Amino acid sequence: MRLLEERIKKDGQVLGEDVLKVDNFLNHQVDPELMAAMGEEFKRLFEGAPITKILTVESSGIAPAVFSGLAFHVPVVFARKHKSLTLQDNMYSATVYSYTKKVNNHISISKKFLNENDRVLVIDDFLANGQAVEGLLEVIDQAGAQLEGVGIVIEKTFQKGRELLDQRGIHVESLARIAAFEQGEVVFLDENNEN
Amino acid sequence: MRLLEERIKKDGQVLGEDVLKVDNFLNHQVDPELMAAMGEEFKRLFEGAPITKILTVESSGIAPAVFSGLAFHVPVVFARKHKSLTLQDNMYSATVYSYTKKVNNHISISKKFLNENDRVLVIDDFLANGQAVEGLLEVIDQAGAQLEGVGIVIEKTFQKGRELLDQRGIHVESLARIAAFEQGEVVFLDENNEN
Repeated sequence: MRLLEERIKKDGQVLGEDVLKVDNFLNHQVDPELMAAMGEEFKRLFEGAPITKILTVESSGIAPAVFSGLAFHVPVVFARKHKSLTLQDNMYSATVYSYTKKVNNHISISKKFLNENDRVLVIDDFLANGQAVEGLLEVIDQAGAQLEGVGIVIEKTFQKGRELLDQRGIHVESLARIAAFEQGEVVFLDENNEN
Repeated sequence: MRLLEERIKKDGQVLGEDVLKVDNFLNHQVDPELMAAMGEEFKRLFEGAPITKILTVESSGIAPAVFSGLAFHVPVVFARKHKSLTLQDNMYSATVYSYTKKVNNHISISKKFLNENDRVLVIDDFLANGQAVEGLLEVIDQAGAQLEGVGIVIEKTFQKGRELLDQRGIHVESLARIAAFEQGEVVFLDENNEN
């Protein structure tokens, strides 16, 4: 998505070897017009999939997810994050390892909001090692719901998340695919091949 | 806002004496069409105010705030919540007491995203005792920014938050104003007097 790539080039900050900070339009300050355009783009990319629900995780997934929900005309559920694992009868839960912070987090969603009739599109802000998405897929499995695809705002193709999802035959669409960081600059995959 | 009041009547759950659970359209599962309508309604209610930025707090404030941002065509900043107070040079911070959980939380926002030129609309999901909004106002003061108003999705008029804000002469608009819970049912203020 060219609009997003341009924004990353303009406003993204590369920190160290593999961190991209996009806190001025995505995960602290949010650009609502860009989010709305991203929602429309996910709609286009998953056209025809019979999606009944969008699932994400708080907090940075919420903005892209709710605009996707608007584009698809379906409800959005955001999983809650917890420091400690509290298993409850009325919740689906999963453990998510954070490579950045080197700790386990736990996510949960109420059983009321996901069931075996749901066909789910997962939306998240980043795909790196794939842990957050794997946690959401586990929750979808627990509910007996069906996964229709995974929509990612920014994918770091050089980390293992995309490969893990491809191996499972999952339909993944990323709005920006980063091939590498070179001398503090972002290099996109197929830079000349974008719509 | 009649659409919201009808939704609260239909899907809200009154728990105990003063808790309203709206997790199936606002703060766990989110109805994007309702959020978009709420954003438009806030735009109408604050028409003419020279707003440059919308400020909220994660996570439940994000959905109403981003759709308000879209309606006003301005960026949205969501404050981060922390268990512990970590004062940092590059952050504005405030302490927020939670009456529900009886603990202090801390909120912070990066100094990059709020300054003395900003005219701020605060958006939040609930106004009860007003602690979260007071924390956001403190952050706005620290930045030297100017408050234009406070937009609330659901106000519990029988708790002290609204009075505290009125005493300070702040322009507050709430989309649904709850007068009381009677036998497990929600009673709105001026039920016959809504647009």
